Amino acid sequence: MNSFRALRSLAILTAAILLAAAPFAPVAAQQPAPRGKVVMQVSDADPARWNLALNNAKNVQTDLGAANVDIEIVAYGPGLGMLMADSVVGNRVAEAIGAGVKVIACENTMRGRKLTQADMLGEIAYVSAGVVEIMQKQQQGWAYIRP
Amino acid sequence: MNSFRALRSLAILTAAILLAAAPFAPVAAQQPAPRGKVVMQVSDADPARWNLALNNAKNVQTDLGAANVDIEIVAYGPGLGMLMADSVVGNRVAEAIGAGVKVIACENTMRGRKLTQADMLGEIAYVSAGVVEIMQKQQQGWAYIRP
Amino acid sequence: MNSFRALRSLAILTAAILLAAAPFAPVAAQQPAPRGKVVMQVSDADPARWNLALNNAKNVQTDLGAANVDIEIVAYGPGLGMLMADSVVGNRVAEAIGAGVKVIACENTMRGRKLTQADMLGEIAYVSAGVVEIMQKQQQGWAYIRP
Repeated sequence: MNSFRALRSLAILTAAILLAAAPFAPVAAQQPAPRGKVVMQVSDADPARWNLALNNAKNVQTDLGAANVDIEIVAYGPGLGMLMADSVVGNRVAEAIGAGVKVIACENTMRGRKLTQADMLGEIAYVSAGVVEIMQKQQQGWAYIRP
Repeated sequence: MNSFRALRSLAILTAAILLAAAPFAPVAAQQPAPRGKVVMQVSDADPARWNLALNNAKNVQTDLGAANVDIEIVAYGPGLGMLMADSVVGNRVAEAIGAGVKVIACENTMRGRKLTQADMLGEIAYVSAGVVEIMQKQQQGWAYIRP
Repeated sequence: MNSFRALRSLAILTAAILLAAAPFAPVAAQQPAPRGKVVMQVSDADPARWNLALNNAKNVQTDLGAANVDIEIVAYGPGLGMLMADSVVGNRVAEAIGAGVKVIACENTMRGRKLTQADMLGEIAYVSAGVVEIMQKQQQGWAYIRP
């Protein structure tokens, strides 16, 4: 093999390796600092827990910057009262939504209690099953906090 | 370099890149919709929590289809009573197992209370440490629900 | 193309594929048995929960071997009392730290209660926001236990 051909072969090999490795570099770089994403569960009938969940969301936004983190609060089962129209934390829920927190009620729980969206706080979101929402978010890489 | 050799080099390079990238395509495709897998923790002595865990399992199966999701309920510590032979939710536990939910008792907790499998509900499964089971399932990509 | 050149082309292609695939083999091998890592949350004012968290940490170390697992206990909100100087589980916390468990207090909570490090147990660690610590650990692949 003359030296020109040897060099060409080496160049092909090098290019192939570099190109093959390139698409995986971002994956490796992403792992140390993924975007902050957290789903918080409210499944207690206790207003102290509702306040703790709202405090937790606020602290996460303060610490990381509201623009740098996605936060969902999902209320289901005995926790649904947090999001009913007469909730003692109604003002704080509205404030959290205003600050960019997504607040979600479980329609399964609502059906079980014969409630409609008219019975709930305004501006909240809905999912058919709160527990499935929490489960799927985790499997998509979100952290989970159960205050 | 004549044009035949240039074409051949290009073909080699293209083949190498395509072949190198191929094995990773399934990984990328899997991420948006992984199989539903969830481990639920029961560590409270409160039958209302036991019922909530059973409701949660049922809702997940209803919403996603029982065939599309793996569900484990792990009872340990103060939650072990859920799986004892005299459990107030014994019928519902049997029903959940019949519906494909894996229900697991912690042998560490049983030893601490001098209980054997004869003291427990039939058809349940066992692990040496409930907390380790919950931990390992999460590290294998399962979601975690603490009702 | 003569047979020498054909063989050389084949060799280049094979080498490129093997070299491109090699860096990903460890990733695939790592998935079935990642190093055990678990962050435990203490956010209840209830000493029974504090003991449960300490029991859980001990059981994980016993079952997997203390050298094979990283454990963090993070106390925040109503759970901070676990780590105050007068904590009823102070001895057990010291023992856990001695056994390699990292025990962490939330400075946000401390500020809210006008507490300084002088009011807390010795040898514990601190983070500015407990909930962010728990969230980030999960996004780095740690399991989460909320006893």
